Amino acid sequence: MNDATGMYIAETHTSAAVWQYRVEKMILEGRTRYQTYQICEVPRFGKSLFLDYNIQTSILDEYVFHECMSQPAMTLHPNPRNVVVCGGGEGATLREALKHNTVEKATMVDIDKELVDMVKQHMPEWHQGAFFDARTTLLHTDARQWLADKKGAGFDVVLSDLPNPHEDGPAQFLFTREYFQIAADAMSDEGVFAMQAGSANENYPECMVSCIETLESMDVFPHVAGYYGIVSTFFQPWGFVLASKRHDPLALTEEEIARRFAQRGVSNRYYTPRFHAAAFTLPEYLLEAKRHSGRVLTDAEPFAWTA
Amino acid sequence: MNDATGMYIAETHTSAAVWQYRVEKMILEGRTRYQTYQICEVPRFGKSLFLDYNIQTSILDEYVFHECMSQPAMTLHPNPRNVVVCGGGEGATLREALKHNTVEKATMVDIDKELVDMVKQHMPEWHQGAFFDARTTLLHTDARQWLADKKGAGFDVVLSDLPNPHEDGPAQFLFTREYFQIAADAMSDEGVFAMQAGSANENYPECMVSCIETLESMDVFPHVAGYYGIVSTFFQPWGFVLASKRHDPLALTEEEIARRFAQRGVSNRYYTPRFHAAAFTLPEYLLEAKRHSGRVLTDAEPFAWTA
Amino acid sequence: MNDATGMYIAETHTSAAVWQYRVEKMILEGRTRYQTYQICEVPRFGKSLFLDYNIQTSILDEYVFHECMSQPAMTLHPNPRNVVVCGGGEGATLREALKHNTVEKATMVDIDKELVDMVKQHMPEWHQGAFFDARTTLLHTDARQWLADKKGAGFDVVLSDLPNPHEDGPAQFLFTREYFQIAADAMSDEGVFAMQAGSANENYPECMVSCIETLESMDVFPHVAGYYGIVSTFFQPWGFVLASKRHDPLALTEEEIARRFAQRGVSNRYYTPRFHAAAFTLPEYLLEAKRHSGRVLTDAEPFAWTA
Amino acid sequence: MNDATGMYIAETHTSAAVWQYRVEKMILEGRTRYQTYQICEVPRFGKSLFLDYNIQTSILDEYVFHECMSQPAMTLHPNPRNVVVCGGGEGATLREALKHNTVEKATMVDIDKELVDMVKQHMPEWHQGAFFDARTTLLHTDARQWLADKKGAGFDVVLSDLPNPHEDGPAQFLFTREYFQIAADAMSDEGVFAMQAGSANENYPECMVSCIETLESMDVFPHVAGYYGIVSTFFQPWGFVLASKRHDPLALTEEEIARRFAQRGVSNRYYTPRFHAAAFTLPEYLLEAKRHSGRVLTDAEPFAWTA
Repeated sequence: MNDATGMYIAETHTSAAVWQYRVEKMILEGRTRYQTYQICEVPRFGKSLFLDYNIQTSILDEYVFHECMSQPAMTLHPNPRNVVVCGGGEGATLREALKHNTVEKATMVDIDKELVDMVKQHMPEWHQGAFFDARTTLLHTDARQWLADKKGAGFDVVLSDLPNPHEDGPAQFLFTREYFQIAADAMSDEGVFAMQAGSANENYPECMVSCIETLESMDVFPHVAGYYGIVSTFFQPWGFVLASKRHDPLALTEEEIARRFAQRGVSNRYYTPRFHAAAFTLPEYLLEAKRHSGRVLTDAEPFAWTA
Repeated sequence: MNDATGMYIAETHTSAAVWQYRVEKMILEGRTRYQTYQICEVPRFGKSLFLDYNIQTSILDEYVFHECMSQPAMTLHPNPRNVVVCGGGEGATLREALKHNTVEKATMVDIDKELVDMVKQHMPEWHQGAFFDARTTLLHTDARQWLADKKGAGFDVVLSDLPNPHEDGPAQFLFTREYFQIAADAMSDEGVFAMQAGSANENYPECMVSCIETLESMDVFPHVAGYYGIVSTFFQPWGFVLASKRHDPLALTEEEIARRFAQRGVSNRYYTPRFHAAAFTLPEYLLEAKRHSGRVLTDAEPFAWTA
Repeated sequence: MNDATGMYIAETHTSAAVWQYRVEKMILEGRTRYQTYQICEVPRFGKSLFLDYNIQTSILDEYVFHECMSQPAMTLHPNPRNVVVCGGGEGATLREALKHNTVEKATMVDIDKELVDMVKQHMPEWHQGAFFDARTTLLHTDARQWLADKKGAGFDVVLSDLPNPHEDGPAQFLFTREYFQIAADAMSDEGVFAMQAGSANENYPECMVSCIETLESMDVFPHVAGYYGIVSTFFQPWGFVLASKRHDPLALTEEEIARRFAQRGVSNRYYTPRFHAAAFTLPEYLLEAKRHSGRVLTDAEPFAWTA
Repeated sequence: MNDATGMYIAETHTSAAVWQYRVEKMILEGRTRYQTYQICEVPRFGKSLFLDYNIQTSILDEYVFHECMSQPAMTLHPNPRNVVVCGGGEGATLREALKHNTVEKATMVDIDKELVDMVKQHMPEWHQGAFFDARTTLLHTDARQWLADKKGAGFDVVLSDLPNPHEDGPAQFLFTREYFQIAADAMSDEGVFAMQAGSANENYPECMVSCIETLESMDVFPHVAGYYGIVSTFFQPWGFVLASKRHDPLALTEEEIARRFAQRGVSNRYYTPRFHAAAFTLPEYLLEAKRHSGRVLTDAEPFAWTA
C-alpha cells in the first residue's frame, strides 16, 4: 500500500502541492545555456518534455496546448499571411500556424538554439517537419528585442508561446504592457495577438487574469478575450489570451470557423468549430479573480510567478 | 531550491504521478468503520477533507463540485419536490438541492454515520445547516438497497454523490447498470438522475465515458448528457453525468435557467445560466474516448478504478 | 508497485535527499513561539516527535540518543553532583543524568516553555517523571545567557542538548568557541561537558568535526573526544563530543564503568561498559574529515547547517 | 521553504519511510534480464548506482561497503589463495579480495552478465581493473548451483555479495542454511565465509540477526560474528556476518592485522587494524534483536525482505 519506489520528476505547484511525475524511461537529458531538459516516458502521458523540472508537454495532449496557442488567433484573422511565433521551442505552435494555407511566411524567434536543435532531432512528433517548411524562418535571439526592431512590419498574427514569468526568469518582461505594445506596433491594423497566460484554475488565476487586465488597459486592442484548454498533462486547465485590433473572437460563429477551416485546409482535434464558444466561456471564478486580483503588468511591476 | 521540508498527504494519481498536498495544520483526524479522514489546512485551498488520503473537497471550490452535483439535475426538473441524495457525506450536495424552494422532502442516505456526525460538527461551512433543515431526512444505510426498497416511490431527482468505484471498494456496485435501473425504478416519469462520474481529463476518462455509455444503453433515460466542472482541488476537471426520463438538458436555455433560479430562490457561483451550455460541451477527446473505451458497466463487470 | 498514498512528514537531508516519514496517526500538533511540533505514530519507530518537520526522537530508540547525550559525561565524572542540561526539551537527557544517584541538583534550561509544558503532559515515556524529581530545577530562558551569569558556579557536568545550528536558527551561537568558554567558566576544575554535534555520517560530517576542532582549540579542555550513537530514527549514526578538564574518557575501562554504574545505580541499554570503547572509536572518514573540513567555530563565523 | 522541484529516485524503506535521492544528472540507464539500473550523480554522494530503484553504491563510500564485504574474511584467513565472490556485480568486492597478494585465483560468479558488462565499461572507479586481473575468472551463472557443483573444491574464502532476499527475488535462497552448507562444503578446513546481511539498524535488524542465528546453528562454523560498516549512502549502518571453520575473528589483534596488511600489501580506508574491534562490537539492540527475532533461515522458510 505504500510502495513509492521509482523515479520521479517533482514539480512544486505553488505552496499547495508537489507533483511527482513518474519516469518510466529517461530518453534524453541535458542542459542548455538557459535551462535543463529531460525527455522521458511518463505512464499515461507517454513521451514528455520537462524544462527546469517542470513538465512542458506530453505526446498525449500536446495538441490541446498547441492548437489553443495557435488556432483561435489564426482562425480569427481573415487572411493570415505573415506570422510570428515568439518562443515555441517544440515547433508545434509553428506547426499549427502553418496548417493555415494562407500563410506565406512564419518566423519563429526562440532564444534557446541548443534546445531547438535538440527538439528538431529528438521530438519530431511535435514539429512534424515545421522547422523545415519552406515558409519558416527560425531565429535564435531575444524575441522582445527582435519585435521592437520590427516596428511597422505589419505582421498578421503574433503568437507568444513563452515560459511562465518567474521572478528573474527569462520571460518575466514578456508578460508586460510594454512588451504587448511592442508586439502591437509590429502588427498590421487587423493584427491578432495570442499568448499562453498561465493556469486557468481557481487556486492560481493571478497571472492569467492580469494578462487580460493588461491587454484590456491598452487602446490598441479593442477586443481582448481569455480562453482555456484542458491540458491533462499540466493537471489543470490552461489559460490563453487573445487580443485583436479589429476582429471580435466572440463574434466568430461555428459556421464561419468551419468555413475558414475548410477553405484553409485546417483540421483540429481540440479547437473545433463546435468547441470555440465553450473555450471562450470563462468560469465565473476567473471573472471574479479578474475583478479582485487582476492588475496591469508593467516592466516596473511585472508578474512574479510563485514556484 | 530543493527544500521539501513539511507535512504532506500523498495521493497516487494512476500510475502517472503522486500528488503531495501540503498540510499547514491538521485540524482533526480519525477513522470510521469505512474510511480514514483528515481535515486540514492546505495552502491556497484552505480547509480541506481527505478520505483514505484522497482529497475530497476544499473550502476554496467545494461550491464548484457541489453545484455541479446538484444544480443541473435540480434545475432541469420542472418542479423538484422529493429529492434523494445517495452518499454526499459533507452535506453540501444536500444543501444545494435544498436551495430550490420547490423541495418538500430531501432524503440523504449515507452509510457512514460516524463520518456524517463528524461533518455535522466540524464542517459547518459545507452543510450550512442543511442537516437540520425541516425538509431533511438523514439515513445511514446502504443507498442501493434503500433505493431498491423504494421502487415506485416516484422521486423527482436522485443525486448520486458517491466515492469512486475502486476495486473491492464500497461504491463499485453503485456505478453499474443494475444500480442505475434501481434508481430509475424509484423515480417518477419525469425523474432526473445525476452522478459524479470521475475525472474528465484525457489521461483518465474511462470511468466517466463508461458511465455515459451505460446510462445511454438503458431504455429508461432518453436523455443522457455528460458535463464537467473545473475543480482546482482535484487538479483536474471533474465529470458528471445527467440522465433524464423526459426533459432534455441540452434544450434548456440560459433564459429558462435564469427564470427558474429567480422563481425558486436559487443563486449559484459556478453553475450560472450563462455557463450551462459550456459545462455541457464536452471536449472532443471525451467523445473520442467514449467511442474507444466506453463500455456498459454491470454488476458482473463493474468499473475498477486504478489507484 | 507505485502506491505512495498516505500522510508523510518530509525532511530535506542536505541537497542529497528528501526523507518522507510515514505518519500513521497524528497524536498532537501545534506551534510554540519557537517552533512547530507534531507528535505522531510512525511505522517501525512508533510514537515520534517532529520539530519544524525534522524528526527529533522516537520511542523505538530515544534511549540511544539520550544515553549518548548524558551517560559518557556523567560516568566520566568521578562524582557528579551538580548538573546542567542546556536545551533537552523532552526531559530524557535530564532523566538519564538523574539515574546517577550522586546527583544532588539538576538544572534544565530550555527556552521553549510551551514545548516543555506539552512534553510534560504528552510525552511521559520520555521524561518518566524527571521534571518532577525533587532534585530538578526547570528554567525557561536563554541557556547561553544563563550560563554566562553562572560564571564560577562550579557545575560538575554540562550537557548541551540543543537543536542543530541552522543559519539564523536559535542555536547557532550555542555551537561556538565563545559558548563553550562560557560553559567551561561555569564548571568546576574537573568539569565534563558533552554536546550533540550533528551527523556522524561521511556525507555530512562538517558540523561534528568542527565541534571537535573547536573544543580542541581551547586550553581549558585537555581531553576532547568524539563518539557516536546509532540512531535509527535519524537514518544515520549521530555524533557527540565530550570535553573534559581533567579526566580522560579514553582511559576509562570497561571494569571501571561497570563499577561506577553499580555504585550509582545506573543501568543502560545502549551505553554499556562493553560498548564504551567502540562508541569512542571514530571511523577513519571522520578523522580525515576533521583534517580536511574541521574548523574553529566562533560567534563571528558560526556553523551554518545546510537544510 | 517548500520547493521540492527536481528529479528523484524514491526508495521505500519498510513501511516507515520513503527516501528520495536527488538526481543531478542521469549518466546511464537501462534494464537487464534481471533488473533495471541507473547510474547517476547524487549530490554529496556523487556517481551512484541504483538497481530496481534501490541505491547500491556511491563513489563517496563504496569503499566502506566493499572493504567490509572482503577484508575481514580475507584478513582472518592465514593464507587466502583461492577465493570466490558470489554476486558482487560492480567488481569492487573482487578488487578488495585481489588486494591480498596471497591470492592466486579469484572467481566471481554473477548471474547478470548484462549488468557486469555495463559495469566494466561505465563504472571503472569500482572495479579498477579487477575484471582484467590475470588471477580473475568471471562466470555468469547461478552462484548457488555453481558452488554446489564445487563440493570439495577447498576454497579459502567465499564472499557472498548478493541482493537482499526479497520475496520471490533472485537472492532469497542465497540467505538460507542450505546455501550456507553448500558454501561450507566447497571450502577448505580453514575456510572463511562472509556475507552482506542487511541493515544493522534497530528498526530493521531481522535479516542480519537471522543470518547470524542461522550460521551459528550449523556445526561447521565454530566461529560466527556479526559486524557492521557505516554506509552513509544507505542511510544506515550495514550488517555483515563472518563464519569461520577454524580461526576466530574476535581473537585477531590490531597488531596481527597490521602485520598481515604489511605482508600482503594491503592498505584500507575503512577497515583498518585500529577499527577492527569496533566494527565487531555489535550494539546491544542487535544482541537483543537476535534473542527476540533471530531465527534459522531455511529453503522452506527463507527470509522475506519487506520493501
